[in-house]
This record gives sequence, C-alpha cells and structure tokens, in this order.
Amino acid sequence: MAGRRYDARTTTFSPEGRLFQVEYAMEAIGNAGAAVGVLSTEGVVLAAEKKTASKLLDTGKRSEKMYKIDSHIMCAVAGITADANILINQARLAAQRYSFAYQEPIPVEHLLQLICDTKQTYTQFGGLRPFGVSFLFAGWDCHYGFQLYQSDPSGNYGGWKATSIGANASAASSILKSDYTEKMNLNDALSLAIKVLTKTMDSATLSADKLEISTVCQKDGRVIHHQLSDKELEALLKTAGVLAPPKPEA
Amino acid sequence: MAGRRYDARTTTFSPEGRLFQVEYAMEAIGNAGAAVGVLSTEGVVLAAEKKTASKLLDTGKRSEKMYKIDSHIMCAVAGITADANILINQARLAAQRYSFAYQEPIPVEHLLQLICDTKQTYTQFGGLRPFGVSFLFAGWDCHYGFQLYQSDPSGNYGGWKATSIGANASAASSILKSDYTEKMNLNDALSLAIKVLTKTMDSATLSADKLEISTVCQKDGRVIHHQLSDKELEALLKTAGVLAPPKPEA
Amino acid sequence: MAGRRYDARTTTFSPEGRLFQVEYAMEAIGNAGAAVGVLSTEGVVLAAEKKTASKLLDTGKRSEKMYKIDSHIMCAVAGITADANILINQARLAAQRYSFAYQEPIPVEHLLQLICDTKQTYTQFGGLRPFGVSFLFAGWDCHYGFQLYQSDPSGNYGGWKATSIGANASAASSILKSDYTEKMNLNDALSLAIKVLTKTMDSATLSADKLEISTVCQKDGRVIHHQLSDKELEALLKTAGVLAPPKPEA
Amino acid sequence: MAGRRYDARTTTFSPEGRLFQVEYAMEAIGNAGAAVGVLSTEGVVLAAEKKTASKLLDTGKRSEKMYKIDSHIMCAVAGITADANILINQARLAAQRYSFAYQEPIPVEHLLQLICDTKQTYTQFGGLRPFGVSFLFAGWDCHYGFQLYQSDPSGNYGGWKATSIGANASAASSILKSDYTEKMNLNDALSLAIKVLTKTMDSATLSADKLEISTVCQKDGRVIHHQLSDKELEALLKTAGVLAPPKPEA
Amino acid sequence: MAGRRYDARTTTFSPEGRLFQVEYAMEAIGNAGAAVGVLSTEGVVLAAEKKTASKLLDTGKRSEKMYKIDSHIMCAVAGITADANILINQARLAAQRYSFAYQEPIPVEHLLQLICDTKQTYTQFGGLRPFGVSFLFAGWDCHYGFQLYQSDPSGNYGGWKATSIGANASAASSILKSDYTEKMNLNDALSLAIKVLTKTMDSATLSADKLEISTVCQKDGRVIHHQLSDKELEALLKTAGVLAPPKPEA
Amino acid sequence: MAGRRYDARTTTFSPEGRLFQVEYAMEAIGNAGAAVGVLSTEGVVLAAEKKTASKLLDTGKRSEKMYKIDSHIMCAVAGITADANILINQARLAAQRYSFAYQEPIPVEHLLQLICDTKQTYTQFGGLRPFGVSFLFAGWDCHYGFQLYQSDPSGNYGGWKATSIGANASAASSILKSDYTEKMNLNDALSLAIKVLTKTMDSATLSADKLEISTVCQKDGRVIHHQLSDKELEALLKTAGVLAPPKPEA
Amino acid sequence: MAGRRYDARTTTFSPEGRLFQVEYAMEAIGNAGAAVGVLSTEGVVLAAEKKTASKLLDTGKRSEKMYKIDSHIMCAVAGITADANILINQARLAAQRYSFAYQEPIPVEHLLQLICDTKQTYTQFGGLRPFGVSFLFAGWDCHYGFQLYQSDPSGNYGGWKATSIGANASAASSILKSDYTEKMNLNDALSLAIKVLTKTMDSATLSADKLEISTVCQKDGRVIHHQLSDKELEALLKTAGVLAPPKPEA
Repeated sequence: MAGRRYDARTTTFSPEGRLFQVEYAMEAIGNAGAAVGVLSTEGVVLAAEKKTASKLLDTGKRSEKMYKIDSHIMCAVAGITADANILINQARLAAQRYSFAYQEPIPVEHLLQLICDTKQTYTQFGGLRPFGVSFLFAGWDCHYGFQLYQSDPSGNYGGWKATSIGANASAASSILKSDYTEKMNLNDALSLAIKVLTKTMDSATLSADKLEISTVCQKDGRVIHHQLSDKELEALLKTAGVLAPPKPEA
Repeated sequence: MAGRRYDARTTTFSPEGRLFQVEYAMEAIGNAGAAVGVLSTEGVVLAAEKKTASKLLDTGKRSEKMYKIDSHIMCAVAGITADANILINQARLAAQRYSFAYQEPIPVEHLLQLICDTKQTYTQFGGLRPFGVSFLFAGWDCHYGFQLYQSDPSGNYGGWKATSIGANASAASSILKSDYTEKMNLNDALSLAIKVLTKTMDSATLSADKLEISTVCQKDGRVIHHQLSDKELEALLKTAGVLAPPKPEA
Repeated sequence: MAGRRYDARTTTFSPEGRLFQVEYAMEAIGNAGAAVGVLSTEGVVLAAEKKTASKLLDTGKRSEKMYKIDSHIMCAVAGITADANILINQARLAAQRYSFAYQEPIPVEHLLQLICDTKQTYTQFGGLRPFGVSFLFAGWDCHYGFQLYQSDPSGNYGGWKATSIGANASAASSILKSDYTEKMNLNDALSLAIKVLTKTMDSATLSADKLEISTVCQKDGRVIHHQLSDKELEALLKTAGVLAPPKPEA
Repeated sequence: MAGRRYDARTTTFSPEGRLFQVEYAMEAIGNAGAAVGVLSTEGVVLAAEKKTASKLLDTGKRSEKMYKIDSHIMCAVAGITADANILINQARLAAQRYSFAYQEPIPVEHLLQLICDTKQTYTQFGGLRPFGVSFLFAGWDCHYGFQLYQSDPSGNYGGWKATSIGANASAASSILKSDYTEKMNLNDALSLAIKVLTKTMDSATLSADKLEISTVCQKDGRVIHHQLSDKELEALLKTAGVLAPPKPEA
Repeated sequence: MAGRRYDARTTTFSPEGRLFQVEYAMEAIGNAGAAVGVLSTEGVVLAAEKKTASKLLDTGKRSEKMYKIDSHIMCAVAGITADANILINQARLAAQRYSFAYQEPIPVEHLLQLICDTKQTYTQFGGLRPFGVSFLFAGWDCHYGFQLYQSDPSGNYGGWKATSIGANASAASSILKSDYTEKMNLNDALSLAIKVLTKTMDSATLSADKLEISTVCQKDGRVIHHQLSDKELEALLKTAGVLAPPKPEA
Repeated sequence: MAGRRYDARTTTFSPEGRLFQVEYAMEAIGNAGAAVGVLSTEGVVLAAEKKTASKLLDTGKRSEKMYKIDSHIMCAVAGITADANILINQARLAAQRYSFAYQEPIPVEHLLQLICDTKQTYTQFGGLRPFGVSFLFAGWDCHYGFQLYQSDPSGNYGGWKATSIGANASAASSILKSDYTEKMNLNDALSLAIKVLTKTMDSATLSADKLEISTVCQKDGRVIHHQLSDKELEALLKTAGVLAPPKPEA
Repeated sequence: MAGRRYDARTTTFSPEGRLFQVEYAMEAIGNAGAAVGVLSTEGVVLAAEKKTASKLLDTGKRSEKMYKIDSHIMCAVAGITADANILINQARLAAQRYSFAYQEPIPVEHLLQLICDTKQTYTQFGGLRPFGVSFLFAGWDCHYGFQLYQSDPSGNYGGWKATSIGANASAASSILKSDYTEKMNLNDALSLAIKVLTKTMDSATLSADKLEISTVCQKDGRVIHHQLSDKELEALLKTAGVLAPPKPEA
C-alpha cells in the first residue's frame, strides 16, 4: 500500500530504491506474445508467438514480431507495438547513418546501446513514460561474430547465448538452461526455439500461423537474414513433431 | 477502485502495465458510428454509418466519415471528428510531400506508419491526451496491391482482410469471420459490408442517408476511388434487400 | 461523483471516453444569447439575440454578435466574447493571407477548418482550456455556393441548412426541423429566423434593440453581406407580427 | 462547495461553464475605488475616486487613477495598480507604433482590442492569472468621434454612453440609467459623473483630494485631454453643491 | 481555513480577489528592520534600523540597508536582502543604460517603474514567488525635483512626502502624519526620521551602530548623496536627545 | 510517516535538511553487486561481484561491471546499469575531448568532477531523478600518481585508499579498515579485494564466473590497464584459497 | 502542522512570510562539519572540522573543506559538497574572467555577490531547490584590504570580523563574541579559531587529521594563501594545548 506513493512517476525512487513505473512497463511485456532467441555456431535464431492471430489478418504483407534493422541485424519484439515502431525506426536510421559515415555496417552492440540510451532517457525525465517494449537483437559483426542481445524498458541490456522475452519468460528460461549447449548448429537452435515456444504458449498446439521465425547466418561469406515462410514453418513443426491438425479459428 | 490511481495521465503505467488513458480513448470510439472495411479481389470497400443524420444537415458538400487522402488512398473514421481532421490533414500533407520528393505515390503502409507514430507520441508524453480516433485506410500501391489497415488511438496498426471500428465492433467482427472469403469480388464485398452495418446499427433499418460507402479499385490500369451517390446507395440497399421504407426523421 | 476525477483537465479522458472540459465549455455557450442561421435559395440569414442590451450601450459603433470575416463570409457568435475575438481575428488574417496568396477569396469550409483546428488544439494540450465559443459561419464560394456551418468548442463542425447555437438550442432545433423547407427564399428565411428567436428568447417580446440580423446574398453577380439597420429590423418585426410595444428598459 | 474544485486555475471550466478565476479577479476590482465615464456631445468625461488619499501622498507628481495613453486617448483604472501599469505601458507602445507606421493616431477600439486580447490570453493559458484590472478608455478618432469603452479582466469589452467600474458599480449604473441623456454637454456630463461618485463613495463627503477628473474634448479642431486641477475640482464640487467642509484626514 | 485553498500560488486569486502569496511576502517585510523616508525642502532623508547589528559584523565595508543606485538616486530596503540585491543590481544597470543612451540621468519614477514591472511579473506567472522586499527610493531629477517613492512586493508604488516600510510601519505612519509639515528643511527631516525610528524600534534605545542614514540633496548646483558616518550619527542622536549610553551588545 | 511528505521530489528538502530521493537512489545501489577498490604502491585494483551470473549469459563480449574510460582510467559500477551507461559514455567523450584539446590525458579527478557535476544537476532540478549508480574510478596521472575515487548518486566524491560500493558496503569497509596497509603491493591488493568480496557476497563461495577484476598499473613507463581473464581469476582464487569446486548453476 | 502546507516549494511563502525550503536547507548545513573564520590585522584565518575523517581517505590529494578560488581568495564550505562544487567552479570561472577582462584580481565582495545571486535564483523559481551549502570567503583586495564574508543558502551574505558556519554555529558565535578583539594578529586568530573548533566539535579531542586550516595574508607585498600541513597543524595544536594523544580511528 505504502509503495503506491512512489509508483506514478518515472522520476521518483521508492524508499527501497525501486522505479515502479519501469517495473510496471515490464509487466506490460509479460502479457505480450513470447519471443525466444538462440545463438548457434552457424547463426542466430529468433522465434516468436503471434498472439493476435486471426483468419482475417492480412499476414502476407508485414511481419508482426520480427523487424529487419539492417542487412546484418534482425530484431524480435515483445510489448506495445506502437512503442516498438518508434524505436525500430530510430534503429534503422542509426544503422544507415553509421553505414554512410563509416562505410561499414554498424556493430551490433553499438546499435543496441543507442536504442537503450533512448530507453533510459524515458525513465529519468518527468512528463514521459518508459517504452513498454523489450527487444531481442540478433546480428553479426566482424568484432564478435554472431551475437544475441536482450534489452528491457529500463534501458538495461545484456549479451546472451539463449534467452526469451514476453509471456512465460521464466518457464522459457528454465528450458533453455537445461537444453542449451554451446555446440548447437542452426537446426538444433531452431528445434530448441520451437520446443520453448511449444511449452510456453497458452494455446494447446503450435501452428505455422501463430509463429514467426527469423535467422541470421552466413552464406558465401555474406551475412544473410531469412524469415521462414509458412511452408518452411510447417515443415519445421512437422520435423519437431509438434504440428497440430489445422485448428478452426477461435 | 485502485486502478483509478493510474488512469488520469498518459505517462503512467498501471501496476498491470496498462495505459488507461489509451483505453479510455478507445472507449470514446466504441460510441462512434461504425465503419467497416472489406478487401476483395477487385478492390477495397469502406462503409460507414452516419450517426448524426438529420434532415437539416447539408450533406451535399462534405463527407462525414470518408476522407480522400491521395488519389490512391481513402480513409474511414470513427471517433472524435476534430481529432481526425488534424491527422487527416497531416496524412494529406505527407502524401503530397512524398509524391513531390519521389515522383511516385506514397506506399500505403508508409503513410499509415507516419500517422501512427504521431498517435504514439500522444500516448507517451505528459500534457497531452491520445487522439480519440480510429482509422480504416484503404489503398493500393505497387508493392502489395490492394490493402486495408486499421489503426487505433494507441498508435498500433495492422493489415486486415476485413475489419471494423466503432460501435458494435465485436458483433461486426464475428459476422466478418463467418462470411468473409478470400475470393470475394467487389460486389460481394459491398454486400458483406452492408450486411455487417445492417446487423450492428442501432436503428432498425438502414437507409441511404445514414450510410457512406467508398471503394478503391482499378480501372484501365489506374487506381480510382469512388464514393457512392445516394442513388447508388439506394440501389445497393434494394439489392441487398435491406432497404427500409423512407422513415420520418426523429 | 466519480466522473469528477476526470473533469479538470482537457488532457484527461473519462473512463467512458468523454472530455468533460469540452462539455463544460459547451455549457458556457448554452447560457449565451442564441444565434440562428438559415440557408435559403437566395442567400444565408444569420440572426442573434443580444443578451446585454442596455440603454447605455453605445450600439452605433460595433456589432455584438455579428462579425464580418471577409467580403463573402459573415459569422455569428455565441459564448465568451473575448475568446471569440481571438478566433475572429485569426480568421480575418487567414482570409486576407489566402486572398493575397491565391488572388481569390478563401473557400468557406477551408477557413472554417483552420479555425476548428485551432479549437481542437486547445482540447488536446495541457495548460490550456478550450475556447468557450460556438460559431455560425455564413458565406458563399464558387465551389459550393451559399453555405452555412456551425462549429463548437471541441473543434467539430458541420454544414447545415438551418441550425442554431446558444440558449435554447434544442427548442430552436425542433422549430427549424418542422418549418424549414429547401425552397425558402431570403424573406422566408428571415421570417423563420425571427420566429425561432421569438420562441426561444427569455424575454416575452422581441424588439429591434435586442436583435442583430445579417444576410449574405448575391446582387449583380457580387456577393454582398448586409447587417440590417434598426429601421429594417423594426419593419421586419412588424411584418412578422412579433413587434412588441416599446418596452421600458429593465 | 463543489464549485471549489474548479476555481483554482484559469484553465478549468466549472461544470456550468464558468471561469471562477476570472470572476475572482473581477471581485478584486469590486473593492477598488470607483471610476465613472460619461459620453457627452462635446467630449468624454472620466472621473474616479482615490481610495488611498492621505495627507502624506505626494500627489503633485503623478495621477493615481488616470493615465494618458496617447494625445487622443485617456484611460481610468480600477483594480490592481501594478497590473494596470503593465497594460498601460503596452497600450502606450502600441499607440506609438501605430502612429509611426501609419502616420495617423490609432483608432480607439483598435487599441482597446489589442489590450483585451492580452487580457484574454491570461485567462486561457496555465501558469498565469488574469489581470486584476478594469479600464475605462475615453478617446476620439475620425471613424466614430468620441467614444467610451469599458474592459474587464476576462478581455470582454463594450462601447458605452455612460458606465462605471470598481466599487458600487451597480449603484452607479442605476443612477446613470435614470439620469443620462444623449443630449448632455460636457458640463452636464461632469455634473453627472460627480453625482454618481458622491452617491457611491464610502466616505460621507466628496473632497477635491479624493477625486480625479479628466476630459477628452475638441478645441480649435484638435483633440485635447485635460486633467482637472485641484482648484478646478473644488469649483466644480462647489457648483455641484457637494463640496464638504475640509475634513481632517483619518 | 477556506482561504487556504488559494494561498499557495501567485497565479490564484482567492474568491475575494486577493493574492495571498503577495500578502504573505508583505508579511516577511513586516518583520524586517524599519526604514523611513522624509521629503524636505532641501532634499530627501532615508533612515533605517539595522536589525542584525553585532559587534562582529564588519560594518566598515558595506551598507546593510542603503544602496546607491546612481549619483542622484538612493534606495533603502526592508525585507529579504538576497531578493533586494537582484533588483538593486537591475536598477543600477537600467540607470547606467539610460545615462549611456540619452546622456542624462534616468528620471526617478521611470527607474522605479522598471523595477516595479519586474516585481509585478513575479506575481502573475506560475513557478515564481514574489520578491520579498519593499523599497524607498529617494532621488532628484529635473522634472519633479526631490522625490520619495515607496514600492512593495506587489509591484505597486506611490510618491510620498513621508513614509516608512518594515516593522511597525503603521506606528511610524501615525507619527509621520502628526509631525510632518511641508516646510521642513533637511535638519527637521533628519530629526523626524530619528524620532520615528526611536519610537518604533524594538530595542529600548537607539545607538549609532543600529542606524543608517542617507540624504539626497543639492550643493553647488549638483545632486549629492551622503551616507552619515558613525560620528555624524552620534552627533545627530545627541542633538535629538535620544542617544543612549553605550549598550553592551546582546 | 511525516518524512514522507518530502520524499517524492529531488527539489524538496525535508525539515531536517535531507534529500530523500537521493537517499533512496543510494538504497538502489545497496542492493547491487558489490565492487571494491584498493590502492597499492604498484597500481590500483578494482574487483566486483557479478550478480546476474548465468550459464546463458554471453560473457565473452562485454564486461558487466568494469568499463574502460580512457587508457589510464578504469571504472567499476554498482547500481542501475542503464544509468551507468549514460554517464560512462559522457566520461569517455570528456576524456577524448580533453586529449584532443590539450594533447595529454585528462587528470583523473578532473574527469570525476565532470561526471559528479552531472550527477549533482539531477538532484537539484525538478522533473528529473538522481542517477541510481555509484562509481569507483581507478586511474593514474602525472599530478597525483595512482588514484582511487568513489562517487555516489548525490554527486559527492572522495579520494580513497581502499573503499567499496554496493551490497554489504559497511561489512566491506570494516575488513578494509582492519587489513589495509599503505605498503601493499599489487598482489597484496588483489588478495585483499578478493577477501573482501568473499566475505561480503551472498553466495557461499566465490567462483571466477561471478567475479570481474581490473588493474591499473605501470609497465615500461606506460600506464596499462588489465582486466583479468577467467584463467587468471581462477589462479588468483586458488592462491587466495577461496576457490570453491565448480558449482552447478542455480 | 499548518505550516506544512507551505514547506514543499521554494516558490511558496508561508503566511508569516517565511520560506521553509530555505530554512530546511540551512538545517542541512547545521549538521555539517563546522568552519570558522577570523579576521586579523595580518590576514584572515579559515579553519574547519573534517567530519568524514577515516584512515582510508586519501587526504593527500584534495582538501575536503577548503577551496582556493583565486590567488587572493580562499573559501571554506559547510553543507552538501556536491552543491558546493558547482558554485566553487562558477566562482573560479568568474574570477578568471574578471582577471582576463580587467587585468586585475576580482574584488572579493563582487565575486561573492555573483555567487549569492545564483543562490538567490534557486530560492525564487519553481522546479529547483536551494543550494544546501554555506560559505566563508576570505580574501584581500585593494579596496577594503583583508575581508571575511559569510553566505548562506538564501543568498544573503554579510561581512564579518569573525564568524562560523555549520554544526554548533551558535556556540561558536558566543565564543567569538567574548574572545575576539580587533587588534588580533594572525597567530591570535589561529589560536581563537582552534579554540572555537575544540569547543564545538562533537569528538572529545581535536587532532590534525580532523582539521583543515588556511590563511590569506600578505608577504613581500603579495597576497598569499597557505593551507597548513599536518605538521604545522600538529605544532599549532600543541601550542594551543589541545592536542590529544593519537586516537585509534573509530
């Protein structure tokens, strides 16, 4: 009850040194569709559950949870989409400006830090609210190879080998801890990502229309990103043995 | 009761991570006249119910619910008209600037994102309130052909095959789900739109003076938009079998 | 009682999606002297009741309720006069700038939208209050001929054939609905306007010193506006049969 | 009691559409020394009661209630003197700028509207309070001849033949209504002004040291303003029969 | 009790039209050491009581209550010294700028009005508090000769023949009223000022170290100001018969 | 209870002259992983406990608690990482600008003061919250040789021979007081730092993956900083006798 | 209790005309280590107690309570160090700018007034808090010779022969009053300063490590400042007879 005196503004620490508005923003993300990232020896896998799947959605035109930032960086999102759009746009601009200025792709962590500094700003100044969105950034650069980062509304971020954001993140985390090994190749990583989503989704069975998967890997010396088509997703689910019979939409 | 502590400002997350002011703005739209959009193989249909129909309204001069953004984009509105005017104006300017800069029509989603970024801004900064208006954008561009988008006060948006905004949106949604098929041509889409409005309107019968319908389609290789005249509307209603006898105005 | 939590700021939606400050501003207008507008085949009539009529007022020099915006646009006001002055001034400037830039008179609706966008702004930003004033705009342009618009503090506006603002607006509205016909000529419109004011005024009888009437019509191919003199008003009242014997001032 | 929720800010309408802060500012004026203005066929009379009259005041150097704005405009003040000074200074600047730009004296109403627009601004924006001052402006211009205006803290203003501001304004108003005639010459107007002040002042008798009177009239084709000296005031009071025996100061 | 709702901000009028913050600022001055000013035929006298007199104060270097603004203007202060410093500095700058621009000394009232306009500003805008300081300005200019002005935190000011600010101002006022005559020469004025301070000081007896006296007078056609030395003060006190035996410091 | 009135804003002193928001920010640091700094005759040691150690963290790429500011300055952090990033970035920029302007490395205290002035700003202005982060700065410059500084959220800082920040700082402090001697060489300092962390960590045993250690020392006349690798850490822990058997992660 | 309504903002006077936030800031200083200043015939002595004395503090590098502003001005501080740093920095800049502009050292009071004007600003504008720091400024200039000033958070300042700030200031004041004589030479002043600190410190005995002493005096026609070394301090304490046996640190 007493804590409530400190939870209405980002500019107020509680007596225990907590920033409640930031914690509440994370709460918003806990209700969003989960996204999982896995780092393999051959590349990075991002997989996400689409919560608002509906027969009437025009899915052919835009991805709901996956965004391409630059040719070497992909991003998965959990939280308020409108907030994410603002930051995604800023990230794309920063990547292009870096390319233009230095004639080489922006390092992954450098880009992430720019975005996270923006996020931090919205937690320290009055008259603003934190961005209600967490990101998984997957990318490759010549300094650290393949990388996977997670960032949250506070502006904190960290490099991970495997991690998840959004609904049921702690359940996902324990599966990742028990199953992840550093020797995984891209296929192992895809299987692990699907396994995690299968276990943590609210719906009983996973189908291709509720799923988005992207990979960042290398081919012929170039970094390529690839968003799996519905067919590839179905094949993958079949392989993983989790493909349910086509369900009539709720 | 407790939730009330967090519902007076757009810059305050509730402990569950909700933004009440945005939800209240959506409530304003739930009372506005409904608008429905249907994507067909031959074009997009937008139909809307005029709530303030009165014999004394000078309807000949301006549309109440339909706005032309550019020659290839139409927009239907539900919510506070004054708020809509601001955003419509911004959209028209953006479309003209794009045309001028790149000598080609602005892509539909690109325009929508500009508008939605503005909407998002009004949900994150203090001293503002969200725009109390939802949009249906119908358009065509060379990238994705015919498109239908829905945007709400939060700044979220999505591509849909058929959707509705405003009063009785959930009832409309279930009719659309059961009746919509991807093979619909423009006439099927018109019939479906009228069926939805007939079922969801408060008044017993639908008449031409309570209705606005626009279409975006292609003719002779050019995108054309067309707002149906009263005569066309009456013919359409007769066909649809829902035309009521002329009702004395309330 | 609960609604009171949301009614002190323009930047706060109530849980039902209402903007109380805008509604309160409209309340201010409900107490102001009524103004009525009627569109006829020959021109537009604006008529208004002067509430502060006093023998000591120096009425010869300025109109209290009628303002000329440009040679083709007149405006009647209900609400806080000081607020109206700000917007009237802005409207006059906009009209002159348009004339200067394009060498033709500003279209009526274009001008109205500029004013209404300003009004809308004052309902969406903190630290402001809405303009406490409603307008009737009467004008003529080459696009739509004679036009009559009504705008309220929210920034909403609409085109009307006959409408009223200020005190007893709903009583006025029902008289207009029953008596208005589209075939009215200017004299019919004048009679209707006087009838409406007679029925809705607080005082028992209507006299020339409590009345202001303006017309926008065409003569010899030019748009002219005309504010009726006291003599013309008395003649008109006599014709209308509502002229009371000279009343000693209260 | 309930009204109190809406009375602390200029940016808040009460549910009845009232602006309490503006009304409270007018209350401040109701306690200030009265000022009365009378329009005659030969010119305008401004008369005011000095409330703070004291033997120790150095009255020779500055007027307390009368200010010259330009050679053709005088102004009487009731309310907070410090607030008045700001607006008087602005009025003088505006008059000089107009003269300089157009090489002719500023029209009286034009000047008044500038001041009133400033006053209005202070009633619509947060972080400000209204100006706690009312004005009587007396002047002459070639458009409307002699004029008398009254303005209040809301920014409203009107042209009057005879009016008063400050303490006991309603008592003054009823004397003016019964005694004023349009045929009055300057002397009649002076007598009327003195009669009004005599009846409405708190102190029993009117003496020259509690009185300031100015006139704006024409002489030899030029507009002249004149502030009556103590001798002239005493002669006038003697004529008016209201001159009390020299009172020992309280 | 009820009045308390309106007393925390300068931007809020109370229902009676009072500005409590300004009144509270005046309260701060009522506790400060008194200052008295007397206008004589030969010049102006300013006298003030030093409240913080202590043996350890280094009085040789700066005056505590008297400030020279320009060669023809002196100023005595009562209230918050830090606030006074800001305004004194502004006054000195304004005086120098005027001299530089027009090659003649700034008129006394002109300077005072500049300072008072600044004071007024701090009573009308949010996020500020009024200046907690009153001034006595003594000066000479070619327009009005010797002058004495008093200004308070509201920004009001007036010309006086004799007046006082600070502690016991009303007691001082009644002595001034009974004893002041317009024929006083400088010595009479000095005696009167000392008499007033003697009667209104809290301490039993007046001594030179608790007193500051300045005069503005003319000598050989030039305006000179003079701050009395300790010796002169003691001689004056002896003459005035109020010199107490040297008191051991408290 | 009463203190709560003053603890929500950085711009409010409590009646005892405390700034609660700054104290609450320090509370946030008290929960963060500890960092310890020790000054030796051969250089400075910084050691820190990683609280979020997890098998899935990709530790190879970035340090969590140690940041290189310039070639001669290292920094250890306790508190909110996102806040730290902002200040670290500012520090790096300041160091580079100084180098560029003066062609010599920035003095350690000079850099620290810049950072602390920024921190102070966030404790004195409204609409901000203090930075929730404490720093240990270790560096060398030609003015004072090796130096160790500690700064906290208030912007206060001090030079120390040995100190700690973060969790269990007081326990660490007493160990440092009893064990520290000025004659310590780098190895002694390393051992002391490890001893302190061992005693103050929450977990039973210290392992290399929970530890980060950096040193700033001199080699061949140049300042070098060195962050110990996992191998070096393990060797060091073995030497210190505190190396636990590899623990399965929680 | 009632006073509490007025104590949260610097922009609010209490009904008695007090500024509580300024008084609370002074309270913060009452808990800080004391500093004492004494003016002698040969120079000025500043002495201060270090409250945070610890064996681990690296005292060799920077003074905690004494700051050199310019070659002729020293300053002792009591209160929040971070606040002091901001103002000290500003003072140093001002002194250098003055030197550069006028090629002579800045007069002591001129510098002090600049700092105090800044302090005053922070007590009059919203969204700020007062600087929680008091200063003693000791200096010499050619106008007034040796000088000693004291300034507090309100921006008030005064010249003193002997004064103290910080803890137990009133006890210090009474010792100074009884013991100070104007004929004191530098050694007498040093002894007096040490006596005052001995009597007012919380700890039983005074030791060199808890003490900082600076002097500003003249040598060979030049102003020199000198901060006493530990050896000099010990010698001085021995002379003063207050040197305690080396105490084990708490």
